[in-house]
Amino acid sequence: MTTRVLTGITTSGTPHLGNYVGAIRPTVRASRQPDTENFYFLADYHALIKTGGDPARVQRSTLEIAATWLACGLDPDKVTFYRQSDIPEIPELTWFLTCVTGKGLLNRAHAYKASVDKNTAAGEEPDHGVTAGLFMYPVLMAADILMFNAHQVPVGRDQIQHIEMARDMASSFNHLYGEHFTLPEVVIEEHVATLPGLDGRKMSKSYDNTIPLFVPREQLRKLIMGIVTDSRAPGEPKDTEGSALFQLYQAFASAEETAELAKAFAAGIAWGEAKERLFERLDREIAPMRVVYDELVRDPARIEAILKIGAVKARAIATPFTARLRHAVGLRPLHQLAAPAQDARAGKIAKPAFKQYREKDGLFYFKLTDARGELLLQSQGFANPREAAQHIGRLQQEGVSALAALAKSIELAADRSVIADALAQLAPDA
Amino acid sequence: MTTRVLTGITTSGTPHLGNYVGAIRPTVRASRQPDTENFYFLADYHALIKTGGDPARVQRSTLEIAATWLACGLDPDKVTFYRQSDIPEIPELTWFLTCVTGKGLLNRAHAYKASVDKNTAAGEEPDHGVTAGLFMYPVLMAADILMFNAHQVPVGRDQIQHIEMARDMASSFNHLYGEHFTLPEVVIEEHVATLPGLDGRKMSKSYDNTIPLFVPREQLRKLIMGIVTDSRAPGEPKDTEGSALFQLYQAFASAEETAELAKAFAAGIAWGEAKERLFERLDREIAPMRVVYDELVRDPARIEAILKIGAVKARAIATPFTARLRHAVGLRPLHQLAAPAQDARAGKIAKPAFKQYREKDGLFYFKLTDARGELLLQSQGFANPREAAQHIGRLQQEGVSALAALAKSIELAADRSVIADALAQLAPDA
Repeated sequence: MTTRVLTGITTSGTPHLGNYVGAIRPTVRASRQPDTENFYFLADYHALIKTGGDPARVQRSTLEIAATWLACGLDPDKVTFYRQSDIPEIPELTWFLTCVTGKGLLNRAHAYKASVDKNTAAGEEPDHGVTAGLFMYPVLMAADILMFNAHQVPVGRDQIQHIEMARDMASSFNHLYGEHFTLPEVVIEEHVATLPGLDGRKMSKSYDNTIPLFVPREQLRKLIMGIVTDSRAPGEPKDTEGSALFQLYQAFASAEETAELAKAFAAGIAWGEAKERLFERLDREIAPMRVVYDELVRDPARIEAILKIGAVKARAIATPFTARLRHAVGLRPLHQLAAPAQDARAGKIAKPAFKQYREKDGLFYFKLTDARGELLLQSQGFANPREAAQHIGRLQQEGVSALAALAKSIELAADRSVIADALAQLAPDA
Repeated sequence: MTTRVLTGITTSGTPHLGNYVGAIRPTVRASRQPDTENFYFLADYHALIKTGGDPARVQRSTLEIAATWLACGLDPDKVTFYRQSDIPEIPELTWFLTCVTGKGLLNRAHAYKASVDKNTAAGEEPDHGVTAGLFMYPVLMAADILMFNAHQVPVGRDQIQHIEMARDMASSFNHLYGEHFTLPEVVIEEHVATLPGLDGRKMSKSYDNTIPLFVPREQLRKLIMGIVTDSRAPGEPKDTEGSALFQLYQAFASAEETAELAKAFAAGIAWGEAKERLFERLDREIAPMRVVYDELVRDPARIEAILKIGAVKARAIATPFTARLRHAVGLRPLHQLAAPAQDARAGKIAKPAFKQYREKDGLFYFKLTDARGELLLQSQGFANPREAAQHIGRLQQEGVSALAALAKSIELAADRSVIADALAQLAPDA
């Protein structure tokens, strides 16, 4: 079976080397694995939580991140690459999930609790400065995942709880409305490479120590020359341990190249020369991608077109699936299935019915039809009529919960929720 | 100016006499007032909060409520009558508002607080059994109102806070992203008639004492015969004060008819006869509507078609407005306005610009264009160039906040938020 893998990227920043090594490069590689169906999306609804009031930044970041993933080798013909806000079904599913989610579950979200703790420590009201967006973020994320019934969502440890919450919401919905959602599995990226930034701390926007992935060659050179080192003079042996420069090199170089640089460190290479080597090694990997990136960024209409095609692919799944979910929760065209209720008003109650019959093949079959005679469920052929009747009896007694046990001998011709409704009407105590 | 009035009806029950007298009848009358533009919607997304897991009830209630409003005289050609879930822009706007709403605001919602208080009193966790749907309900309601920039939302006293919250959310959004939303006014329905139910208490679903508005004539009769009265015998004078029967009669009868019944009460009318009179008076008003109702309910496809036409009318407003809001928050086609940023990369920063010029009419004009030369704002003609220059100076100094004061002499040719961005780039300290 094909495994569906889903990854979202919030469009609130400019990709840097740390994002490339830790997320983009490994993810693009993983996208080429056989037997996987990959969904990558630009999470711009999520970006509104963080960038409230900075629309130009959301737009710019969406362009940069899309161009980056494409330049780094994501193949939009092989994967589904789309922008979240092109899928209007996502906010709708967010509302459906909102209605089945206990508020208590959201109270326990780490990101929300961290804000509350920070406020409490500062002597503020617990929810000071907390938007409903931050609080509801796990529900939007669950909608992203469940819309495509993703099997796997590769995340860092800090995101495990969000996947667990998505599983909780899927279970609640399935419990209320029938089995619609696959429960996603967490795939923990244990070996995420983290890169040091210009100052030696972890490269991160919040430390303001990042090296953007795509800057002109000369600017990359200047940035690398600014990496903090110790003050050992040329000729003095250098430590590889704890050297940001060495770690950056290692993240891009082969084992042999890395061993060579280690030797040069021991032999007392000058920091300036080491930086020059790092720059050349980095640029060797980045330069060809930079050409593509620059071309893409100069042609936003092309990226827009690529994302629109991705949206068509994504909606080919999302639109019919949402129609099914709408039916399940009761948002139905009024003329669908309304007939039985009318008949009930007139005193004649039309009901779903089981029908038993024998086919030319000599076997005994049964089917379940709704009040208007539409097929809901079809059995296989049984050698004798008693067997068919036993199956019917079990469906009448146990209702929809018998479906799993009888899965081998029956085929569903309608939504589980529709069948559940019909069986409920036929239950002995109905 | 035309006043936009918006009313939502949650699709989670069957309309009863209390709904008719308290809400439907006065609202249908109000819908015929001149100089108002009326929006009525079936709030089925709201119904999911209350009816979790009862899809057939949501569907049935939507049909019944739609048929009721139409049967009671709502004219779908004169008002915009639509189903909330036919407007996909509503959940999207809900998310935009979620991101600008402080969680603290929602903590203070009466309905939510009532649940917390009840839990606390019962020794439960504060959020026991509270769904995120209940908590987020005011945001969905704000989206309903703000989507159509409704001026007035007639509500009972218990709903005042929700309108105030919608105003808060509108202000927050306007503050962050420019003036997009009208702040809705509360219109309190002080004189809402409440009807007694079968047992004399207020007619309410929660007391299980309702008389459905549309039941067959004989059933209505039976229900009325079951109204609780005191045990005074025929011939004994009856009190009108505190008589559920009398109050029900009064809600349907003219002043003269009411006075007559009061006389009959004093003269000792038998309860059975009084009930008979009530039944006949009620049925006189209801019977013609019942005919229409029964016809409509037998033809759900017709109601569906009416609602679909309403959705087209509603979306003729919602779709372009949401496009404007998407642009405002930064969810923009990537090729729109991305040009300046590219030029900046290349070192040549293209900027918006003011242009002054003289027309053939001898007057002096100016306009503001964006980095690509597209018109953003156009002035009227001024008698002398100094006047035009003063206007430009003020726009440069004060930015978007000057627009209101200069409204008479300029015409906007683009979204306020786009103009705000452009003026920000031209600000003296930019």
